[in-house]
Amino acid sequence: MELTMEQCCERLENMDDIAVLCHRNPDGDTLGCAFALKYMLEQLGKRVQVKSHDGFPKQYSYMYPKSQPEFEPKFIVAVDVADEELLGSSMDKYKGKIDLCIDHHSSNKHYAKDWYVRNDNAAAAEIMEDVCAGLFGVKLTKLIADCIYTGVSTDTGCFRYSNTTAHSHAVAGRMIAAGCDFKMINRVMFEIKSQSRIAMEKEVLATMEYHFNKKVALVYITRDMMERTGALDSELEEIASMPRQIEGVLVGATLRQRDDGYKISLRSGEEIDSAAICGKLGGGGHRCAAGCFVKGNLEHAKKEILAVVGETLGYGEEKC
Amino acid sequence: MELTMEQCCERLENMDDIAVLCHRNPDGDTLGCAFALKYMLEQLGKRVQVKSHDGFPKQYSYMYPKSQPEFEPKFIVAVDVADEELLGSSMDKYKGKIDLCIDHHSSNKHYAKDWYVRNDNAAAAEIMEDVCAGLFGVKLTKLIADCIYTGVSTDTGCFRYSNTTAHSHAVAGRMIAAGCDFKMINRVMFEIKSQSRIAMEKEVLATMEYHFNKKVALVYITRDMMERTGALDSELEEIASMPRQIEGVLVGATLRQRDDGYKISLRSGEEIDSAAICGKLGGGGHRCAAGCFVKGNLEHAKKEILAVVGETLGYGEEKC
Repeated sequence: MELTMEQCCERLENMDDIAVLCHRNPDGDTLGCAFALKYMLEQLGKRVQVKSHDGFPKQYSYMYPKSQPEFEPKFIVAVDVADEELLGSSMDKYKGKIDLCIDHHSSNKHYAKDWYVRNDNAAAAEIMEDVCAGLFGVKLTKLIADCIYTGVSTDTGCFRYSNTTAHSHAVAGRMIAAGCDFKMINRVMFEIKSQSRIAMEKEVLATMEYHFNKKVALVYITRDMMERTGALDSELEEIASMPRQIEGVLVGATLRQRDDGYKISLRSGEEIDSAAICGKLGGGGHRCAAGCFVKGNLEHAKKEILAVVGETLGYGEEKC
Repeated sequence: MELTMEQCCERLENMDDIAVLCHRNPDGDTLGCAFALKYMLEQLGKRVQVKSHDGFPKQYSYMYPKSQPEFEPKFIVAVDVADEELLGSSMDKYKGKIDLCIDHHSSNKHYAKDWYVRNDNAAAAEIMEDVCAGLFGVKLTKLIADCIYTGVSTDTGCFRYSNTTAHSHAVAGRMIAAGCDFKMINRVMFEIKSQSRIAMEKEVLATMEYHFNKKVALVYITRDMMERTGALDSELEEIASMPRQIEGVLVGATLRQRDDGYKISLRSGEEIDSAAICGKLGGGGHRCAAGCFVKGNLEHAKKEILAVVGETLGYGEEKC
């Protein structure tokens, strides 16, 4: 059943030996919520384990405890998990047994026995501030503030994404007042780049081409480049947005070698419909971010995507 | 004399034909304050001119009016200007005649007849929110919110710099509630890069070298590269921080050709004293950001700086 915040806190206060589950490929929000909750409940003398199908990525290590207690959990909580399927296969044993879900996704499947879902928040971590205030005798420590701030900052792209609200800022401000190390957190989350990512950026920038009076920028990533640099998939995501960040560029295209062709990611502003362009090559997506796949070699993939982009921009064929 | 916020608003309410002065090389905070104040006072039926020694940079154009009224000002206000010397020479005629200064710099010289200075704010624009609330009959419009948000976001590096406070976030949150287009603003301020900057990043990344077990990263910028790419000095500032943003790198060095040698910028974390390293080559600066100058060619400059960096890190000579 759907709970009020008061009922949610009551459930937590009354239980012990608690497991807190993150979604797979854990990000700053699911980890921030889970560790914030662990440290709150530990103040009440409870045993708490945080669990993640993919372990704990090292860039979030400032949130982690030195060790976690081993026990058979009596109460299972999922945080920032919209659907049991998102837990990952190693969490299968908990499926159908989740007692409480705290989440901010409007797509939440209400799979838990009880849930508290507030979908007007950019980050689930914003809800955790109220959990902290609602649990009797629990103090907002610097470490809990670090966890909550991490969730808010990462889910809003450091307050840049359109999901950011006045409430996101209000929570972040209160976490700073509580002593969180926002400077270190944002440096780790948004400034530090791996050596493989830097190597890939160098290679990708070297492929940059402008077309149609510099209104279109195109880069590509071959299988060779992937192997040479060792860049991770998650790092390539951000590289795909590079061409669209150039002044005057209306459409950015990133071509990435895969199987027997190239996967093309298109990014644009609201004035160009990327989904419609990609639709012409059998793909789709959103107005400002869409994709398609073109079989064949690089030259062929470039020619195909530039033809449909040029058509949309009102340029004749072969004038790119 | 020092004013209370109430007195500050009273002065503004009682005057007409107002000039608002920005500091030279105007940034988002001085411009945001000036245009926010203009739009507030215009709601009261007053004539207001905003003035800047260096004009109005085009990336802030969303704040600008279509035209500005011409008149001989009867009341002169300076915003975010710590010292009259920072106005720029074309504002010399206003020196000694400034009626009111609204600022957040603790270094403010109290050069105006009256001043309101609040130095615990990261941005002067944070003060403008209170001016808006204090002026009788003035509403916080979307356009004023855009101006105030711009000041806060740019002066805090999108809430990442250590000067960011709970108050900065609180103000930003209220500007979002008032309808400011924070997504567009942050895209323009922090994501868009000029084609010349992208060209320079490509060239600079191609020069990236690692030394001392990858604890040191070094890049260089020659006069040729400057001419080829057309990158601006302001763009090079950010490029200088690239090497230190690489995972595992303790010291980042950027060598830039100038006159008969190379100007070297060193960046580090707190654990390494960049100022001490640069001091050995006749330079200086801060613990985390320092500089020096080495006469001679690129190879010589590299050798000199790597020798002193290596020594500090405990590596013997020539093992880089």
